[in-house]
Amino acid sequence: MGTSQVAIVLYPGMTALDAIGPYEVLRLVPDVEVRFVGHELGPVLTDSGVLALGVTHTFAETPAPQIIVVPGGPAATAVAADRRVLNWLRSAHRTSAWTTSVCTGALVLAAGGLLDGKPATTHWAAQGALALLGAEPQRDQRVVRGDRVATAAGVAAGIDLALWLVGETFGPQRAQAIQLDIEYDPQPPFDAGHPSKASGAVQRMALADQVRLLGGLRHSGTLIGTASGAQKALWRSMIRRIRR
Amino acid sequence: MGTSQVAIVLYPGMTALDAIGPYEVLRLVPDVEVRFVGHELGPVLTDSGVLALGVTHTFAETPAPQIIVVPGGPAATAVAADRRVLNWLRSAHRTSAWTTSVCTGALVLAAGGLLDGKPATTHWAAQGALALLGAEPQRDQRVVRGDRVATAAGVAAGIDLALWLVGETFGPQRAQAIQLDIEYDPQPPFDAGHPSKASGAVQRMALADQVRLLGGLRHSGTLIGTASGAQKALWRSMIRRIRR
Repeated sequence: MGTSQVAIVLYPGMTALDAIGPYEVLRLVPDVEVRFVGHELGPVLTDSGVLALGVTHTFAETPAPQIIVVPGGPAATAVAADRRVLNWLRSAHRTSAWTTSVCTGALVLAAGGLLDGKPATTHWAAQGALALLGAEPQRDQRVVRGDRVATAAGVAAGIDLALWLVGETFGPQRAQAIQLDIEYDPQPPFDAGHPSKASGAVQRMALADQVRLLGGLRHSGTLIGTASGAQKALWRSMIRRIRR
Repeated sequence: MGTSQVAIVLYPGMTALDAIGPYEVLRLVPDVEVRFVGHELGPVLTDSGVLALGVTHTFAETPAPQIIVVPGGPAATAVAADRRVLNWLRSAHRTSAWTTSVCTGALVLAAGGLLDGKPATTHWAAQGALALLGAEPQRDQRVVRGDRVATAAGVAAGIDLALWLVGETFGPQRAQAIQLDIEYDPQPPFDAGHPSKASGAVQRMALADQVRLLGGLRHSGTLIGTASGAQKALWRSMIRRIRR
């Protein structure tokens, strides 16, 4: 196999770990070229308003990557309403080996028509929004694999997705070597990483965090102010789900 | 507790996930100000040569953070020989609540004298280098906690470190809510994240990756070319350990 191109999409208001988890796995495959793809070259401010990540290539420069990763974040619904991104995604998906998403990146895949009537997953707080966009949410699956499309659960699930993807594409030994390289031998000091495992009080605190994250999108410019009607409906649906 | 300041150190040739894992956890604590600290404001190119992260504050602007995180990467030994960083680290450590490292960031803490004769950990491939710098490597511990100093194993261990740190500093419920926010419910498709679990073939492949990463530091400028004698000895020791 020659050089494979991996395109990781960046946009203002995204969640950094959604992208950096898969990046740190995929970039360790020899002969893989990783690109951070966006509308313009240069820094993109993530959802914290503090961390900037650099776009290395425009969408136009990257028409046919073998692997596509769409990260999520509170601004994912704005990207799901961005025709230029959706057109690129549909076109690139025609020739990609795998088109994938992490967290609410699945909403972008769904808006692009890649998940119509198909099982998929996303962040636990966005499963309702994913259903609204025509997919069949699989709330209890970490990674959902379809026909050249794979979706991962929230944020940290991108690491599991990428290791699976490397195993599938480059063989299990390569994936295991990368797992060892990044010493991914998880030993979380708590066990509250899924709603089914977290107490009611912890779930309420996390929901308040999600509302705070959405509110914090001011720094990402006028994303929310310029939202279309469909996009505002998505926002409202997500916020309703979050506040429940 | 008022606003806590978290300083995450950035430098050319670092490993991104070492910083972004802890960042994604710590930034979700309400009333925490996260800063990405470096010599100069602006982008820092990580060890892949592709991903740039943005420095938000200089060391001089950040004299007394409550929490310090020093990430690792193939260029960590260059930072461990950077007097300006070590002077800042020693000074900031006088007033910090916790001074921490991920992966080979421990070599920087050790070079700063923070780990003399103390138990500590680092990436599995750098345990020998850590011993050379006067610490007592704990090869089988994910996170080693001392007196206001905590060190984590390689790369992905920074997420476990940060969750523990949030539990310690802001309470277990807060840490659990953040674990749920980032859906850190790890389900790696393989179980090779520690040398004790990986086959011989996988270990050899990972060692070759480590050598490749060190060789790839060309893009980080003249870091290796300008290395001091002590620094070169560290490099050699690490490479010997890696090649074994």
